[in-house]
Amino acid sequence: MNAESHNPTHLGADALRAVFRLHASGVAVITGVDDVNQPLGFTATSVTSLGSNPPLVSFNIAQGSSTYEHLKIGAKMAVHTLGTENLNLAQRMAGPKENRFSKTDWEIGPFGIPIFSCATSYLVGTIREVFTVESNAVVVLGVESAFVNDEEQSPLLYFQRGYLTVGTRLKDNF
Amino acid sequence: MNAESHNPTHLGADALRAVFRLHASGVAVITGVDDVNQPLGFTATSVTSLGSNPPLVSFNIAQGSSTYEHLKIGAKMAVHTLGTENLNLAQRMAGPKENRFSKTDWEIGPFGIPIFSCATSYLVGTIREVFTVESNAVVVLGVESAFVNDEEQSPLLYFQRGYLTVGTRLKDNF
Repeated sequence: MNAESHNPTHLGADALRAVFRLHASGVAVITGVDDVNQPLGFTATSVTSLGSNPPLVSFNIAQGSSTYEHLKIGAKMAVHTLGTENLNLAQRMAGPKENRFSKTDWEIGPFGIPIFSCATSYLVGTIREVFTVESNAVVVLGVESAFVNDEEQSPLLYFQRGYLTVGTRLKDNF
Repeated sequence: MNAESHNPTHLGADALRAVFRLHASGVAVITGVDDVNQPLGFTATSVTSLGSNPPLVSFNIAQGSSTYEHLKIGAKMAVHTLGTENLNLAQRMAGPKENRFSKTDWEIGPFGIPIFSCATSYLVGTIREVFTVESNAVVVLGVESAFVNDEEQSPLLYFQRGYLTVGTRLKDNF
């Protein structure tokens, strides 16, 4: 590479899009309740571990999202990991709000939070921080408990605007 | 599911671990320079898009990391996406600090940032925010430019303490 080849191929928002098209992520469904205990939730590809002592998870959300106003410090939330068998759930929870809880595949779980027991696992925690940046927010959840349902299923991935399975294991990192 | 089955199978840090074992993530390498313009960098599985207007990226880091002290607001950083051909790079940048820049596969790029041109792409940006939570931090980068190198290669995934390829595409989300 010479200095010439450092010339960027993309700028600004286009640069973000170009790079994230090449970045895969796991798919999760986040749920909670609103002020009158009605279920709320959405599909998220931004769930990531933040620390283990104490256990913390972060996810990102647009402040324009209908869910955002309900993400208050102290609120209880669940984060579900999805497997390939949860493809329909991922699509439904990313679609119109009125359809998200229209099926009978969820139940009222701990703290009244809607739980999709078909997910491969879920954790329950409490919102500790909501950091705002421009029109977005980073939400930090303190993790309290988890329920593991299925450890064998391939996780569901999001990549290049589609849903995928994982492929070949190249190398252990034990 | 009945009330009984909501009994958690894991608590606290064990809950975090159990759930994140079932969550896959993309693998990135983040680079920058220290106070005397020496290269620094690390492998990260927490890189995620935060917003597109303006374009923002977030990643998480432990405050105990040797790199943390150099992540100051205004600092320029690069975030590289990795493909499966970058497996060795991912392992090296997650290993001992003294080995990370011991090979000749990097060059000095924009703003003096070390760039691995073998990565599938990289973006360059400026640290806008460093949000601290307990002994961890969420770093927010404003994205300025990007260079795309290889759009065909499978992205490198991290899952269950190993490196993987992506598998079958199940569904488009156009």
